[in-house]
Amino acid sequence: MMEQRKPISVAEAIDRVIQHAQLLGEETVNLFESYGRILAQPIIAVHDVPHFDRSPYDGFAIRSVDSVGATGDKRIEFSVVDHIGAGIVSNKILTQNEAVRIMTGAPLPSGADAIVMFEQTIESSDSFTIRKPFDALENVSLQGEDVKEGEEIIEVGSLIHPGTVALLATFGYDKVQVAKQPIVGILSTGTELLDVSEPLAPGKIRNSNGPMIAAQLARMGISCKMFGLSADNLEASLEMVKSAAKETDCLITTGGVSVGDFDFLPAIYERLGAEVLFNKVAMRPGSVTTVAVANGRYLFGLSGNPSACFTGFELFVRPALLKMMGADKIYLPQTTAVLAEDFTKANPFSRFIRAVYDGATIRPAGFNKSNAVSSIARGNALIVLPGGSRGFTVGDKVDVLLLGVEEGTVKWLL
Amino acid sequence: MMEQRKPISVAEAIDRVIQHAQLLGEETVNLFESYGRILAQPIIAVHDVPHFDRSPYDGFAIRSVDSVGATGDKRIEFSVVDHIGAGIVSNKILTQNEAVRIMTGAPLPSGADAIVMFEQTIESSDSFTIRKPFDALENVSLQGEDVKEGEEIIEVGSLIHPGTVALLATFGYDKVQVAKQPIVGILSTGTELLDVSEPLAPGKIRNSNGPMIAAQLARMGISCKMFGLSADNLEASLEMVKSAAKETDCLITTGGVSVGDFDFLPAIYERLGAEVLFNKVAMRPGSVTTVAVANGRYLFGLSGNPSACFTGFELFVRPALLKMMGADKIYLPQTTAVLAEDFTKANPFSRFIRAVYDGATIRPAGFNKSNAVSSIARGNALIVLPGGSRGFTVGDKVDVLLLGVEEGTVKWLL
Repeated sequence: MMEQRKPISVAEAIDRVIQHAQLLGEETVNLFESYGRILAQPIIAVHDVPHFDRSPYDGFAIRSVDSVGATGDKRIEFSVVDHIGAGIVSNKILTQNEAVRIMTGAPLPSGADAIVMFEQTIESSDSFTIRKPFDALENVSLQGEDVKEGEEIIEVGSLIHPGTVALLATFGYDKVQVAKQPIVGILSTGTELLDVSEPLAPGKIRNSNGPMIAAQLARMGISCKMFGLSADNLEASLEMVKSAAKETDCLITTGGVSVGDFDFLPAIYERLGAEVLFNKVAMRPGSVTTVAVANGRYLFGLSGNPSACFTGFELFVRPALLKMMGADKIYLPQTTAVLAEDFTKANPFSRFIRAVYDGATIRPAGFNKSNAVSSIARGNALIVLPGGSRGFTVGDKVDVLLLGVEEGTVKWLL
Repeated sequence: MMEQRKPISVAEAIDRVIQHAQLLGEETVNLFESYGRILAQPIIAVHDVPHFDRSPYDGFAIRSVDSVGATGDKRIEFSVVDHIGAGIVSNKILTQNEAVRIMTGAPLPSGADAIVMFEQTIESSDSFTIRKPFDALENVSLQGEDVKEGEEIIEVGSLIHPGTVALLATFGYDKVQVAKQPIVGILSTGTELLDVSEPLAPGKIRNSNGPMIAAQLARMGISCKMFGLSADNLEASLEMVKSAAKETDCLITTGGVSVGDFDFLPAIYERLGAEVLFNKVAMRPGSVTTVAVANGRYLFGLSGNPSACFTGFELFVRPALLKMMGADKIYLPQTTAVLAEDFTKANPFSRFIRAVYDGATIRPAGFNKSNAVSSIARGNALIVLPGGSRGFTVGDKVDVLLLGVEEGTVKWLL
């Protein structure tokens, strides 16, 4: 007799998962190790940027008052009393018709309030003339124009990317407070599984899901504990899950979540007293994806089929891990694209189809069954076709989830 | 007297850079360390996938010939002679009206050529009946239907992402031949620069470009050698560049490439006898970006302004490094989006504006000058506005370069 499971929507399933995320706490890392981590402190401007009035050009710093009345016919002359580059503070205080030759980024000398660009002058050896008056603060990059002291620039929960690193460096954060990363375990279940290094045997396949999930975690900057393989044996698997769960914040198993005679994860969850959040999602592939929680720890039961396993990780595990780190943007980036292939057959479940997105159109990455590994290796996005009674045809605008744009494009088209 | 430089287009500049890329050779890494590397060998299917005919369902394996003539009124009965799950090979050879209870992923028993799903049967203790005939190979997942032995699935030059790892695992590649990574050095020049850990001083700013570039490299999975800071002194800087260049395949300097009195990189390139590929690009920010080659090694002279430095890395350094690794997709991913803010002022140079892209529209990330660090920390994309005589207004469709979608979205909208 087959067990009847009631499917819930993908949105509902995601919501149930993230409701159970528990924050992991914080730690301090060096700035140079902070890339990819989640900020556990806001970045506050500890000073103005720039923190002094500076020259945005190569030219001369003058007192604007001295330029009043300058015209092409009645040029005004300035004598150059100093010469500074960025990082140098002139010790001169400008008096009437004096100027300092100044390079981009250097602080305005005392008394100066305007910058004359080289191309606005006629130069002689130690002097120059101008043909127009300058306003106070003309051509000056003002203290605080980029950022004001005390401003909260980046919020807690932001991912630290290269631009964030630049900002942290600017304000002298050589140590950064970040969210601790979850300890994630991977256990691949199935009597059919061989280790990657083992030779093929009749009826067996190599474990591709374990290494794949490790790479999906690596893409998030998260390392993992590999708990290897477990054959389909209830008692042995139960012990492995129990002991692995103790060492992890989140244990990902693959396989064993369907309703087959040797699918033991449902029984294992029951024996552990785990709360099963759902065991059926209205999606293809991966409808049997099961998520449970025991002692505040996640037990993700992903399908053993590679495409379903992949999708289950990206849809459910990824946001849960990010939420545990207090991240603010926990869902895969979305866009829309024009479908380049027909999906005329309707499906009551939402479909997530591994696909190649070129920035405008999207097409399936190849052979598209839940057990296909070849399409996984080819795509860079997922087509999302909502469940319902209609099919989709070439030219339809469809939703797209982006899977990481480490890969770029072949041609420069701009 | 100001030096006159002749600007070239961004496309031309990129082309000149990548023409000089020299391949770095190969190395072998463990599968679990291969994520993010560039394949130096194609992935060849060393066997069919699946490599045996298997059941895609939970059900019964039968001989289709025995089902001929079955109807609702004249059900045909089968006796169950074995019971297997995935990974188990039945030692039974089916004879007339025999069946094997079989789970998803298990190999078809000898003699069987069709799978009856549970829901297509009425079961008794050791037997079941069916009400329709089955074709040969009905409900069978055929050997090689996903991938055929000998097929080249993934080409040399592909980035290894999680799906690639799954494929490598499937075919038993526990070691992977990948491109060697370039040795990249970073040297920040400018008398104004302080180390991140130093307190502010008048006229000085902290070095944000060095850590930022290190993070841009980390995003590509590439580590770097930090050569610290160099004040604006020709002889001292020359010695630092010389010795750093010897230790690297690619030396990135920041600052000193403009035409100011203390911009010494042009003189350094000359003293090194380096071939300057260009020193002016028709782009904002970063028009002074300079790229040179000496002894087959890249010398990237990026602007000292943070936004210009960031953009210069993404436009020129990134494709060069990828090309050195033999990568096939070396350019930033591109798409188009609807502009959410006016840029009414025309600019003869192409503009690259740090921006926030939400999958449909794009808006500037904030204060937008080449010295702005705050906008760098906020955006996830670059708006590309081609140089010319026109401005751009809200609603215009513009080109977009994606900068890494490690960050996702706040809401699940599907």
